[in-house]
Amino acid sequence: MVAQSTFRLAARPRGFHVVTAEITRHLPTLPRTGLLHLFIQHTSAAITVNEAADPDVLADFESIFNKLVPENMPFLIHTLEGPDDMPAHIKAAMIGNAITLPITEGRINLGTWQGIYLCEFRNRASERSLVATVYG
Amino acid sequence: MVAQSTFRLAARPRGFHVVTAEITRHLPTLPRTGLLHLFIQHTSAAITVNEAADPDVLADFESIFNKLVPENMPFLIHTLEGPDDMPAHIKAAMIGNAITLPITEGRINLGTWQGIYLCEFRNRASERSLVATVYG
Amino acid sequence: MVAQSTFRLAARPRGFHVVTAEITRHLPTLPRTGLLHLFIQHTSAAITVNEAADPDVLADFESIFNKLVPENMPFLIHTLEGPDDMPAHIKAAMIGNAITLPITEGRINLGTWQGIYLCEFRNRASERSLVATVYG
Repeated sequence: MVAQSTFRLAARPRGFHVVTAEITRHLPTLPRTGLLHLFIQHTSAAITVNEAADPDVLADFESIFNKLVPENMPFLIHTLEGPDDMPAHIKAAMIGNAITLPITEGRINLGTWQGIYLCEFRNRASERSLVATVYG
Repeated sequence: MVAQSTFRLAARPRGFHVVTAEITRHLPTLPRTGLLHLFIQHTSAAITVNEAADPDVLADFESIFNKLVPENMPFLIHTLEGPDDMPAHIKAAMIGNAITLPITEGRINLGTWQGIYLCEFRNRASERSLVATVYG
Repeated sequence: MVAQSTFRLAARPRGFHVVTAEITRHLPTLPRTGLLHLFIQHTSAAITVNEAADPDVLADFESIFNKLVPENMPFLIHTLEGPDDMPAHIKAAMIGNAITLPITEGRINLGTWQGIYLCEFRNRASERSLVATVYG
């Protein structure tokens, strides 16, 4: 069994956002046992799984990745799309644009503290397109 | 064919550890051709594949990631779980909490120098829960 | 349906390279709906998806990752394979050695600006071996 759906996540401000509930609403029916693959069709946003209980974690994610990959590094040459663009590509490569999650007893089998993050790296972003593929 | 198992890796000290053999003991029977997905249900540890021949590489991994994501950055706000906690979440996002490996002729098809790493970022960690899903 | 092929990408100089076309030539026939998994059997190169329109982006990727993980950090102990080796392992862990892509209507379903990157971290690299697994 293979099922696939394409959908858009609502536009969000720059930063890290827990989107588990919004993604779950867009999924095809899940099999009892299997895998869910989520792929973001963009190069300046990322998707990952991390701590979803304390919003302070999301703020610290934004601070630390801005420190790791600051804007306006003087040696950059791809600058025509704004100072947030090239750092966005790098952050997307570091975090990744896809996740695969186990499905167990018909549900996404996340750990107790885990949630799905949308990582928005652009200052002015629009909706983000995702492709969900389910195997079971 | 889909098979799934959940198991715990023994607690390890903070650092990078080659766990290929321990993981292999917990897997369901592998198909002749397929994929193995391994998912760690935690937000302060990671799983990846890298050089498994020289233990010095593991020590250098720990040193470099500590330099990239140091403890006690003054702007952090999620500090109540200790100075190693927020850096652990960031390192987990950078390395990732899941891997997918090809299965070929009934075996995990790693390259000559590759092994599976458990990356333990907490100072005092307990066992780590993994979900293995096999497709073939 | 599961299909698998192993192939080698031509040797490339150190840096980031768009290899979508070369990889596509090596794939088994794609199903109408499914997933493609690509795994690189090496520990000093990586594979990811990012912006494939402007070659300046590739140059900036090389500059930024060299700044993030510089050579000759004085505390390193795994130095016998040259100053580019240990940074190569770290960059590979940060970016990842595998990608999974959705297949839709018989084609890899990348976003408008996305392409597959081979990230070559060694100064003198040979061909790189990949395992492609297709599900549908």
